[in-house]
Amino acid sequence: MSGATSFSFKVLAECRDASARAGEITTAHGKVSTPAFMPVGSQATVKTLTPEELAACGASMVLANTYHLYLRPGVDVVRRFGGLHRFMGWTGPILTDSGGYQVFSLASLRRVRDDGVVFRSHIDGSEHLITPERAMEIQRGLGADIIMAFDQPASYGQDLVEVQQATERTHRWARLCLDSHVGQGQALFGISQGGAFPELRRRSAEYVASLGFDGYAIGGLCLGEPKEVMWAMAEETLTQLPKGKARYLMGVGSPEDLVEGVARGIDLFDSALPTRVARNGALFAPSGRRSIRNAEFREMEGPIDPDCDCYTCRTFSAAYLHHLFKAEEILGLRLATIHNLRFVLKLMDDMRRAIAGGDFPTFRSEFKSRYQPTNEQARLAQKRGWLVERHRGKL
Amino acid sequence: MSGATSFSFKVLAECRDASARAGEITTAHGKVSTPAFMPVGSQATVKTLTPEELAACGASMVLANTYHLYLRPGVDVVRRFGGLHRFMGWTGPILTDSGGYQVFSLASLRRVRDDGVVFRSHIDGSEHLITPERAMEIQRGLGADIIMAFDQPASYGQDLVEVQQATERTHRWARLCLDSHVGQGQALFGISQGGAFPELRRRSAEYVASLGFDGYAIGGLCLGEPKEVMWAMAEETLTQLPKGKARYLMGVGSPEDLVEGVARGIDLFDSALPTRVARNGALFAPSGRRSIRNAEFREMEGPIDPDCDCYTCRTFSAAYLHHLFKAEEILGLRLATIHNLRFVLKLMDDMRRAIAGGDFPTFRSEFKSRYQPTNEQARLAQKRGWLVERHRGKL
Repeated sequence: MSGATSFSFKVLAECRDASARAGEITTAHGKVSTPAFMPVGSQATVKTLTPEELAACGASMVLANTYHLYLRPGVDVVRRFGGLHRFMGWTGPILTDSGGYQVFSLASLRRVRDDGVVFRSHIDGSEHLITPERAMEIQRGLGADIIMAFDQPASYGQDLVEVQQATERTHRWARLCLDSHVGQGQALFGISQGGAFPELRRRSAEYVASLGFDGYAIGGLCLGEPKEVMWAMAEETLTQLPKGKARYLMGVGSPEDLVEGVARGIDLFDSALPTRVARNGALFAPSGRRSIRNAEFREMEGPIDPDCDCYTCRTFSAAYLHHLFKAEEILGLRLATIHNLRFVLKLMDDMRRAIAGGDFPTFRSEFKSRYQPTNEQARLAQKRGWLVERHRGKL
Repeated sequence: MSGATSFSFKVLAECRDASARAGEITTAHGKVSTPAFMPVGSQATVKTLTPEELAACGASMVLANTYHLYLRPGVDVVRRFGGLHRFMGWTGPILTDSGGYQVFSLASLRRVRDDGVVFRSHIDGSEHLITPERAMEIQRGLGADIIMAFDQPASYGQDLVEVQQATERTHRWARLCLDSHVGQGQALFGISQGGAFPELRRRSAEYVASLGFDGYAIGGLCLGEPKEVMWAMAEETLTQLPKGKARYLMGVGSPEDLVEGVARGIDLFDSALPTRVARNGALFAPSGRRSIRNAEFREMEGPIDPDCDCYTCRTFSAAYLHHLFKAEEILGLRLATIHNLRFVLKLMDDMRRAIAGGDFPTFRSEFKSRYQPTNEQARLAQKRGWLVERHRGKL
């Protein structure tokens, strides 16, 4: 057991007809009602927003990226502030990822060794080695409430042998992370991998669960694979995870995926999608995503979403938001981000209430009949395009 | 007289040893204590900020650009909202410029005729004609509290004949603007021109003042001319303006220019400088401008300016702001904008108090001994570079 004394998770309500559950995570910086969505603040800021705005959107826990913060501003700077909370002005719970995913997807010239990964910074080309022990040390310096084991995610499309090697390395590293974990108020979550291979997914989850982490993440999904593969792999993994621990599906997501993830018993999610698409002008509405740049909004005096209680919808017309995007004004990026975050955070609220009230299956089917997800072909093309651009350092 | 019944201006205190004065402008949307600085919201948004943030910075009146809003979103859209106040969510006073300066500096293929200017939109190349009458009609649709006469500013470096022609045209247009001004709660200010020619400046001010506007602007300055020329021309103009009317120096400015303008009896200023340089990472501090990107800020736990009461300085360290700029995060642009606006708006506050308290000359000399202005050569090079880039449509 990794043993962070201030950390706990308990299930408060379970859905009779599905695996959905509502619960509560307790950390030294406050409680998180689950299922919960974590906005992503890669560089110690959820893009465009202040901490107060994040809280007003209903965020309870935010995610920050170890890889980014390790390179810039550097752990030494964050440590001077006693950790990320004071540095970024967010007083609630924080989770840091381990950097594994970013090292494998953003850094160049990486060399995977059994003891860690050598890579070059995408910022200045400098060479770095991150080992499981170093990943723990860095995350200790960043001071999040929940930290993640250092892992090697497999890309979608890699063959069985490659994925097997990456998964076994992930397992060895998981043990090393646990061994070097100090605790000090930080909970440590393990990450299971296994690519798109059901048997490997099950074995990975079983092994990682046997090590006794404070919680468990499903890694290596939502990376360009078809949705049915994603859900099949998540389901394989979930069969092996202990019910009494928090389960975290990394990199999800879109409103429709949040609902499907909750239905399968996921407690925690993170994704940059709601904030990223917001900056592209794609706003969540009850019937699905809408582009605020569309001419239909040019003269619309009402808000984007009349049911929404966010600052943007309470204060400004769709026409004004349309104007800000057409005129490429930064305020538009802020207002769209606020709306999309509030939309997914309110969705989580609604799901928690539905689970507690015993009518989650009705909520889920009503949501599905109402909300039109992005077309699967378009989604995959966008996602893969984004992964390529991201790798080229454009994002 | 143009006769907006809800508009008035009164001088409340005068400085014994200088021309500085403190006063109050009353509009249908509230009062403005003068001398006042107006943040610039060219496209119906002060870049990066919400109306609440603007108010928290101490802004009382904002400026919006007729040229920009006429082209996008179009007057028809703003008129649906009953004007800019509801469209942009700013409930305080608003001033719109006439579009003259933008037509002459931003639009391409312009043809100046005696009745107006034909130009092509810098956005889509469409052809437009703006006459003095049309400028009044557009500004009526935008619904600001103070609107400006349509003028032809002269560029620094133009010869006497050119400037004379532009000034005479400005005079004819001023009369036409007054003739077609409806009032309806809108005050109309006249603009005097005259380039860098003292005699022309005096004659222009005298003529425009004779027409009986609600207030008077000094146009065509702060456009790349040396500072001594700017102040000499402003002084020539001021000799001819009635003391009982508000005097507005367009396009100023920097903290040091605001102090010098107030010393000469200016009541109103506008400039995009504080917000523009903020987005470049240049922050106002008691001793002058500092670049937040400098390494000296990398680990600084205190705020940029310990004396500042703005949200940025109350909430975040200089190190965090440094990090945001290095990481090219939008939140950095917001926080810097808030700080710079608060800095100049508090400076105006301090000056109003000093004038009322009878110790403005002391305030001015203390400010001068403390605040190091940007080097004049560097300033002119930056300003001219900016004017060129702006004309090329990069800004």
